[in-house]
Amino acid sequence: MTLDMKAVVSIIMGSTSDLPVMEKAAKFFDEMEIPFEINALSAHRTPDAVEMFAKGAEERGIKVIIAGAGMAAALPGVIAASTTLPVIGVPVKGPVFDGMDAVMSMLQMPPGIPVATVAVNGALNAAILAVQMLALADEPLAAKFAAYKENLKKKIEKANAELAEVKYRFKVN
Amino acid sequence: MTLDMKAVVSIIMGSTSDLPVMEKAAKFFDEMEIPFEINALSAHRTPDAVEMFAKGAEERGIKVIIAGAGMAAALPGVIAASTTLPVIGVPVKGPVFDGMDAVMSMLQMPPGIPVATVAVNGALNAAILAVQMLALADEPLAAKFAAYKENLKKKIEKANAELAEVKYRFKVN
Amino acid sequence: MTLDMKAVVSIIMGSTSDLPVMEKAAKFFDEMEIPFEINALSAHRTPDAVEMFAKGAEERGIKVIIAGAGMAAALPGVIAASTTLPVIGVPVKGPVFDGMDAVMSMLQMPPGIPVATVAVNGALNAAILAVQMLALADEPLAAKFAAYKENLKKKIEKANAELAEVKYRFKVN
Amino acid sequence: MTLDMKAVVSIIMGSTSDLPVMEKAAKFFDEMEIPFEINALSAHRTPDAVEMFAKGAEERGIKVIIAGAGMAAALPGVIAASTTLPVIGVPVKGPVFDGMDAVMSMLQMPPGIPVATVAVNGALNAAILAVQMLALADEPLAAKFAAYKENLKKKIEKANAELAEVKYRFKVN
Amino acid sequence: MTLDMKAVVSIIMGSTSDLPVMEKAAKFFDEMEIPFEINALSAHRTPDAVEMFAKGAEERGIKVIIAGAGMAAALPGVIAASTTLPVIGVPVKGPVFDGMDAVMSMLQMPPGIPVATVAVNGALNAAILAVQMLALADEPLAAKFAAYKENLKKKIEKANAELAEVKYRFKVN
Amino acid sequence: MTLDMKAVVSIIMGSTSDLPVMEKAAKFFDEMEIPFEINALSAHRTPDAVEMFAKGAEERGIKVIIAGAGMAAALPGVIAASTTLPVIGVPVKGPVFDGMDAVMSMLQMPPGIPVATVAVNGALNAAILAVQMLALADEPLAAKFAAYKENLKKKIEKANAELAEVKYRFKVN
Amino acid sequence: MTLDMKAVVSIIMGSTSDLPVMEKAAKFFDEMEIPFEINALSAHRTPDAVEMFAKGAEERGIKVIIAGAGMAAALPGVIAASTTLPVIGVPVKGPVFDGMDAVMSMLQMPPGIPVATVAVNGALNAAILAVQMLALADEPLAAKFAAYKENLKKKIEKANAELAEVKYRFKVN
Amino acid sequence: MTLDMKAVVSIIMGSTSDLPVMEKAAKFFDEMEIPFEINALSAHRTPDAVEMFAKGAEERGIKVIIAGAGMAAALPGVIAASTTLPVIGVPVKGPVFDGMDAVMSMLQMPPGIPVATVAVNGALNAAILAVQMLALADEPLAAKFAAYKENLKKKIEKANAELAEVKYRFKVN
Repeated sequence: MTLDMKAVVSIIMGSTSDLPVMEKAAKFFDEMEIPFEINALSAHRTPDAVEMFAKGAEERGIKVIIAGAGMAAALPGVIAASTTLPVIGVPVKGPVFDGMDAVMSMLQMPPGIPVATVAVNGALNAAILAVQMLALADEPLAAKFAAYKENLKKKIEKANAELAEVKYRFKVN
Repeated sequence: MTLDMKAVVSIIMGSTSDLPVMEKAAKFFDEMEIPFEINALSAHRTPDAVEMFAKGAEERGIKVIIAGAGMAAALPGVIAASTTLPVIGVPVKGPVFDGMDAVMSMLQMPPGIPVATVAVNGALNAAILAVQMLALADEPLAAKFAAYKENLKKKIEKANAELAEVKYRFKVN
Repeated sequence: MTLDMKAVVSIIMGSTSDLPVMEKAAKFFDEMEIPFEINALSAHRTPDAVEMFAKGAEERGIKVIIAGAGMAAALPGVIAASTTLPVIGVPVKGPVFDGMDAVMSMLQMPPGIPVATVAVNGALNAAILAVQMLALADEPLAAKFAAYKENLKKKIEKANAELAEVKYRFKVN
Repeated sequence: MTLDMKAVVSIIMGSTSDLPVMEKAAKFFDEMEIPFEINALSAHRTPDAVEMFAKGAEERGIKVIIAGAGMAAALPGVIAASTTLPVIGVPVKGPVFDGMDAVMSMLQMPPGIPVATVAVNGALNAAILAVQMLALADEPLAAKFAAYKENLKKKIEKANAELAEVKYRFKVN
Repeated sequence: MTLDMKAVVSIIMGSTSDLPVMEKAAKFFDEMEIPFEINALSAHRTPDAVEMFAKGAEERGIKVIIAGAGMAAALPGVIAASTTLPVIGVPVKGPVFDGMDAVMSMLQMPPGIPVATVAVNGALNAAILAVQMLALADEPLAAKFAAYKENLKKKIEKANAELAEVKYRFKVN
Repeated sequence: MTLDMKAVVSIIMGSTSDLPVMEKAAKFFDEMEIPFEINALSAHRTPDAVEMFAKGAEERGIKVIIAGAGMAAALPGVIAASTTLPVIGVPVKGPVFDGMDAVMSMLQMPPGIPVATVAVNGALNAAILAVQMLALADEPLAAKFAAYKENLKKKIEKANAELAEVKYRFKVN
Repeated sequence: MTLDMKAVVSIIMGSTSDLPVMEKAAKFFDEMEIPFEINALSAHRTPDAVEMFAKGAEERGIKVIIAGAGMAAALPGVIAASTTLPVIGVPVKGPVFDGMDAVMSMLQMPPGIPVATVAVNGALNAAILAVQMLALADEPLAAKFAAYKENLKKKIEKANAELAEVKYRFKVN
Repeated sequence: MTLDMKAVVSIIMGSTSDLPVMEKAAKFFDEMEIPFEINALSAHRTPDAVEMFAKGAEERGIKVIIAGAGMAAALPGVIAASTTLPVIGVPVKGPVFDGMDAVMSMLQMPPGIPVATVAVNGALNAAILAVQMLALADEPLAAKFAAYKENLKKKIEKANAELAEVKYRFKVN
């Protein structure tokens, strides 16, 4: 990878209670060997810090931002408002509504300021999306990711093989 | 009213297309003779202006802020993040979901930063709520509002009287 | 605080089973040193008591009413119908629908009679909203609340510092 | 019918704008020759009138109450709170949510105070339900209603006969 | 009560797994001393039995039918189709959707065939509604039910008294 | 086709108002040259006719039943209860809820009595599904259907060719 | 059964974690003595395998395909796209939304490519539906299934008998 | 821009009826001078073409794919399954459910295969997101996009100026 060891991806979460969800992104960056940073910033409780973060991210060398939040999840949209970098939103399941409140708060962005939204609690997919973006200009990373994706098939093929062990009287495979 | 003619209430809308909804608030302030200001500011398109507005509102003499927005309606929450004034949110019906996206984006605020949310397109009720807050320390306004509320009954009583005109064979009133 | 030790805020809940939710409001009033009262009254089971409460609240010196209820949560709306004081509604999560039934029952008030609705189980935010209203005419309270809000940032900053302790191979902060 | 010509059923609507929906009930009572009254009363705008109505209904000879309302439709529940008569609720479709807000506000009544809820805008079914209740102690009415119900079949049988006129090449009936 | 000891109310459930919900109705009829019967019949698994039940109910002396079912809860509607007696539907919470599937299946009945729908799992309210219907022509029952309803207030008043025991520093009641 | 000219498929609709939706099925059977019958029968208004229909369908030579209905759409489930033939349900969009009430009423069938549910207003797909079932034992029909399906591609390929006519400055195809 | 011992039904699941749901289908095929195969294939992780499976199924003698998947459950639709065989979809309940995401992803298929959708986690009903299709051209299977269906009634009748054991003071059956 | 005039972005729509929605993306690429291609391909009607497209996209020089579809919108997920390029999904509002069916079908992708989902009918935001990805390795494009984003503020500022023209008696700005 031609990128040096400064963070190229930034993971932001609205609350440290989102860490169990968001760490799936961190682990994927470790696996892909992408330098990243991880912070808790709240659009509603630390708005100045969010703004400072969003405005300075590009200059510090950040390429993609992943923002996870629950409930009225303004965080990814507010970051997107103050940067030209792509922002990926992870709706986090909160105490009610199965995360639909967070989906609505980040998916339904107005024209001009998109947030690339993934599934509820889908932090791994957010990280994969970030890698796909980075890989557009980074061939070794593209190759590494292609290998990762190829490997997904193997896992399900292996699982399938285990299914063959399950016996029923009229099962023929 | 002892307040001088500077704005004591500020109406913010995420887009000027929200004006047909939000003008119901303006008209009520006219009726109650409350000086107000009205602006279009977007949490996602003019975040710096929103921040500047929110941070300066109290010092300029604003007492209550009404913020209307549709879709991923971050506006009231973002304003609430940067002021200690009460913020009333009006979810505006957008192109899909009947305004439920906006409801979710402002109702489900995290602990610490409330938004007083009213019905979808409920700008009149937002204005009434603002008047109720102002009236806590403004007796003439309280009296004027009490008269307004009393008048609501008369309207429905009059409407009821019209119902008496509707004739059915077995209708006895 | 210039208010004497009679209640200035009244917390009403539709059932004593709502106490675990509503006590977050009580604790916040203790923290802000706001005299409050707390009662269980039901719009459907004790309608006369609700009406008597609502009609007498202002004269007794109550400034803001917080009403929490679940299911077909008519309580805040019914109180709002009989007082000119601002009423804050807390939708309480019931046995089904994640509190959406209560949200619908208090958010969608008709023009003329608003209920300031907060998040499902959001009793803390209801109390904060009440303090914001009271602080409009109470400078010491305004200062106390500003300090509280400032403190919210510190908590998330401290949480963020703990995040710095989480180690990944490619994490750079 | 042994009932004299005072109203035995009372139709209440939250707003006269609900009349196009609620008049289906009125027409059915005309068809069944049931004396009824029809009024607009609002749980939120004329709470005292609602209470007076509810408390006096039984003594005035009312047997069943039909209450239609939209949005945060507290009306049937509030009436049910102050009477022991059966109360039928008609959720009226409002400006958003297809009447689901009204459904939630009357269907999800707490234990002890039921509202017999029918379909959104289902005023005809509300009236039929009222007739079914009255017919329990009124044999001529029971007979009249049985004839009405029998007639429903004829209408669909006639409609079916019209279907036989629709021609397709491979249609065999 | 002038009714003899044959069943006047019939409780039907779509599956015996609904018994924990439906027994709340049975207990209320015991309390009100209303003779009732209780059966499990399925619109989808025992359609002939349902039809026979519905067609014969009135002649056997049944006055009101309560039908509880979950999922695609056709049971109350199918019974209503074959009787002129009032049918009360209890949507039972199933494995998904919090009972909304059952609500939709019984609330949204077509014009002509109503089902009086109550809250999800609201079997007690269904029984109360049945008593309200029966009481229309049964004065001793009406008096017994009025006493029951009066007693509901006492319970919440007692609960309220317990609230007075909860102590906070700034609580004044 | 080896089937003689008696109906092998039966189209049932809950109301003749469903004809504009259900005729898409009729047209497809014409195109596939499948003899069919079409009737309006209501689970709630003509329950005996539905039962008679369902019980006799198999013996009359019907192989597949398509039942379309709106609102509390019990029709397909009730038919399925009284036949061993496969029943396909078409949820019809009604006055509210975009057909979700009908989806819930037929999709969520209890274990033992399935209804093969298709999209809201999806009568064409219901007919296709019926043809797929019939084609399992009818090779000429299977061939005819395979040709139909192949043709679907051609339509979208032709539509795609039309897209090539749309001109933008930076469009390269 | 005249079919030899090769699979005539194929059960596909999007992930082996769906096995606890899908095995209800397998058990039913065992009970009906229908030879079947069971595999895990993912529309998103092993698209080539899905395509190969779908294209070859008919030629291998498969008559009906049952595909279960959760979340964005493209599997049954993607299989349906590449075969003319009937495809039955089982929406599997995932981590959020109670399986509604899967319902939407398979129910709302575009015109031309149906998926016969059953209830959330309704794998037994999917298998029953498959048997109903196979039985159209297999009389012994039709007889076996008719017996199975008859037996469903017995179970509920037996359950009903147990209800007779439940004692209440005013219960008369 | 250093890219030559071959397409770097590919817009796919499930049906040409989606063109009025998807052309907002095309117009934005024209404005940003990004060579693009636009095609109608259906995951369900032309699965082979979709697969061929997805597998060959990267080698042909495509960097980002935007896929718009309605109802059971499998298209973006199916494309994502067969490419390592980032795929952006645009849920298109269909005949029912306001596009929620399409949202569910693309947002809720399983771990491993993300789709970057935007608002219902949000094709402009999809195009902006694509530009943000391309701009990561294309400085002139990044500058052009920064100018575009700056311009968004001007539009709302101009709209705000127009608000100043709206006159109310108590409006002070």
